[in-house]
Amino acid sequence: MGNKKLGRGVAVVGAGMSKFGSFPGFTSRDIFVDAYKDLLTTVDKGIDPKDIEAFYLGNYSSDLFEGQAHLAPIIANWIGLSPIPAVRLEGACASSSVAFREGMIAIASGLYDIVLVGGIEKMTDLPISAVTDTLATAADIPYEVNAGFTFPGFYASMATAYMHAYGATPETFMKVGIKNHKHGSLNPKAQFGQKISEIMEIKRASAINKGKPAPTWETELDFLSDNKSNPLIAWPMRLYDCSPVSDGGAALLLVSEELAYQFTDHPIFVIGSGAASDGPLHARSSLTSIPSAKLAADKAYEMAGVSASDVKLAEVHDCFTIAEIIATEDLGFFEEGKGGKAAEEGQTSRTGSKPINTSGGLKSKGHPVGASGAGQVVEVWKQLRGQAGDRQLSGNPDLGLTHNVGGTGQTCIVNIFERR
Amino acid sequence: MGNKKLGRGVAVVGAGMSKFGSFPGFTSRDIFVDAYKDLLTTVDKGIDPKDIEAFYLGNYSSDLFEGQAHLAPIIANWIGLSPIPAVRLEGACASSSVAFREGMIAIASGLYDIVLVGGIEKMTDLPISAVTDTLATAADIPYEVNAGFTFPGFYASMATAYMHAYGATPETFMKVGIKNHKHGSLNPKAQFGQKISEIMEIKRASAINKGKPAPTWETELDFLSDNKSNPLIAWPMRLYDCSPVSDGGAALLLVSEELAYQFTDHPIFVIGSGAASDGPLHARSSLTSIPSAKLAADKAYEMAGVSASDVKLAEVHDCFTIAEIIATEDLGFFEEGKGGKAAEEGQTSRTGSKPINTSGGLKSKGHPVGASGAGQVVEVWKQLRGQAGDRQLSGNPDLGLTHNVGGTGQTCIVNIFERR
Repeated sequence: MGNKKLGRGVAVVGAGMSKFGSFPGFTSRDIFVDAYKDLLTTVDKGIDPKDIEAFYLGNYSSDLFEGQAHLAPIIANWIGLSPIPAVRLEGACASSSVAFREGMIAIASGLYDIVLVGGIEKMTDLPISAVTDTLATAADIPYEVNAGFTFPGFYASMATAYMHAYGATPETFMKVGIKNHKHGSLNPKAQFGQKISEIMEIKRASAINKGKPAPTWETELDFLSDNKSNPLIAWPMRLYDCSPVSDGGAALLLVSEELAYQFTDHPIFVIGSGAASDGPLHARSSLTSIPSAKLAADKAYEMAGVSASDVKLAEVHDCFTIAEIIATEDLGFFEEGKGGKAAEEGQTSRTGSKPINTSGGLKSKGHPVGASGAGQVVEVWKQLRGQAGDRQLSGNPDLGLTHNVGGTGQTCIVNIFERR
Repeated sequence: MGNKKLGRGVAVVGAGMSKFGSFPGFTSRDIFVDAYKDLLTTVDKGIDPKDIEAFYLGNYSSDLFEGQAHLAPIIANWIGLSPIPAVRLEGACASSSVAFREGMIAIASGLYDIVLVGGIEKMTDLPISAVTDTLATAADIPYEVNAGFTFPGFYASMATAYMHAYGATPETFMKVGIKNHKHGSLNPKAQFGQKISEIMEIKRASAINKGKPAPTWETELDFLSDNKSNPLIAWPMRLYDCSPVSDGGAALLLVSEELAYQFTDHPIFVIGSGAASDGPLHARSSLTSIPSAKLAADKAYEMAGVSASDVKLAEVHDCFTIAEIIATEDLGFFEEGKGGKAAEEGQTSRTGSKPINTSGGLKSKGHPVGASGAGQVVEVWKQLRGQAGDRQLSGNPDLGLTHNVGGTGQTCIVNIFERR
């Protein structure tokens, strides 16, 4: 299972997204229009939609969320792209990273030069218990879910295993959430774009308004340790350790390397891509690492000819705070067992040595599952082009990575991007 | 939207399928095992599963049929292929043709040399009304299904439009069903592998057994015109005009052209592939043809450098009998409006000038929607290798085609295969 090179290079020359949030009354096709229109504004030298040759759409389960399958041609038609080939890919919460990878492969094959990659999910129409059940179908129904597991439980198991193995505490995880909300407060597209301290002030004002006693929290950790303000979901994962239920879309324009400069003077090249699969969590020998993520990262680094230390920023899959810590270890940014400490020390903040989830991550930006992977690429693309607004990293970063996990790691995709 | 050549050629060196039918108590992963094991027996010089580099799985909606999403890594794990990349593709009833095409593209890209393509659907666990509703999610829910349409209605509309335009009668459609059941009676994997005449004798014996008056039908057309034995579903489509609800899986082994002879002395090469999308049926200007099928066929012929008259046999998407007639016109086998006549004259039978659906087609072989496209390739592969058993075509056919429609044609894939 060697990691061969692609037949030819691929660049990203446009990247857009809708706001992530809860949008009652809008269907996935409506929301994707926002992402697509945003994308069109980002192609520096313009793109005639007639030149787009194929559409690769990541979507987890509009089947269950909206009662609408066969979404790729529907959305292609809605945005005026019929009759180009329109393909839907599903890899749970990594669906649009799968779509990105297949779009990249299709250009490398020589069949297409210009491909639109999208991601979409409309999750908020269902009651929350039905959302949890729908997400659970990404795990192994007969062997895990029927035994009582849903996703907060899976990741809580990883968190307790991590605490046991490496001495982390619930506060370790909380610090990841505090950091990501701080990052997200600089992202106008984020669903929950407030710092935890800002959320505290909103809650405090609300309590006082309602004539209740003023809360006594002083620090963000006080607030996050309070069972009332931050209820337990599955110990040690509390509400603010969990990414939210979201609606959102993201869109990327991929072109062959030779065409890249026809669209922009600042293309971002895909220099590495790795993918791997795995069996269900219950069958794994360790809960403190995700094997498919390590393997996907190895392949991506090998294809790119770079190592973890070359990566200037990464968007990683923080569906739960523990997941971000494990991701930073699986990607080789920190040694096994050291990711928690690194988060506590602020190494993964915007101003740290290894900025992680400058967008706010799934935690603050939102997690419309089928769009999350494409959304990660949007952030890396903007950071590498110096267009990330208030959250732009200093130092002119030239190499970024995305890490997107499906389920508990039955699917993982890692992509590496470079500004030349 | 030119039709470029692939970076390198691709061959099919193994092809297997489960029996199609109704298998209570078996899940999609169980059924896929049968298809995969059958595939392994067909690779003449053997394949070490460790050499398989990626898995592309077509599945329409195990989400809704089985309450299990994220099926690709689950099945990859179940058949022992973790941790290779495992990708699910969904294009309604064309899902596994989409998977086939993307697997082919991935080999052409240079990233993989050896790819497993699969298709799977487990449909029979749900009550029939829920199956109809689940299939309807492949159409446009807000604009078509909420207005009362389900698939029998869509294809009945096409049938009445065809009757109006070209003077076909309900008997025209019945003759397609009679022909496909005759073909399917020679296919041991078929779900309903009896000729209509055999079904008549079974029903006759059953009536007599129950002490009822013996039915008075004499010919197959008598039987098919009887409202009791062949009830109307959506006029003019009766029960025997509709493909069944099925469970089934199919699997194909794709390798790069250079490797083909390592696996067999008789590889079958993919020489053309075309794909297209479209908006929903309600928005089309004509109901007697499927634009995406014409476009996909044009692209496939162009890539292959062949024309319709070169095709020795085709497996086409006969989800309803009218669909086969339209398919044979969209593919250019017969002029517009002449496909019905050709079917009536027997031109599309095994012994006719243009054999269509020698496997029995979806009508008799069965239509486990996510597996149907891969199942079509199994038949063409066997016919081109002279291994189709009792239904083997004479004349040593060297060129075959598959035509697989998703929904009412929002997706269509056409592939062309050659024995050299």
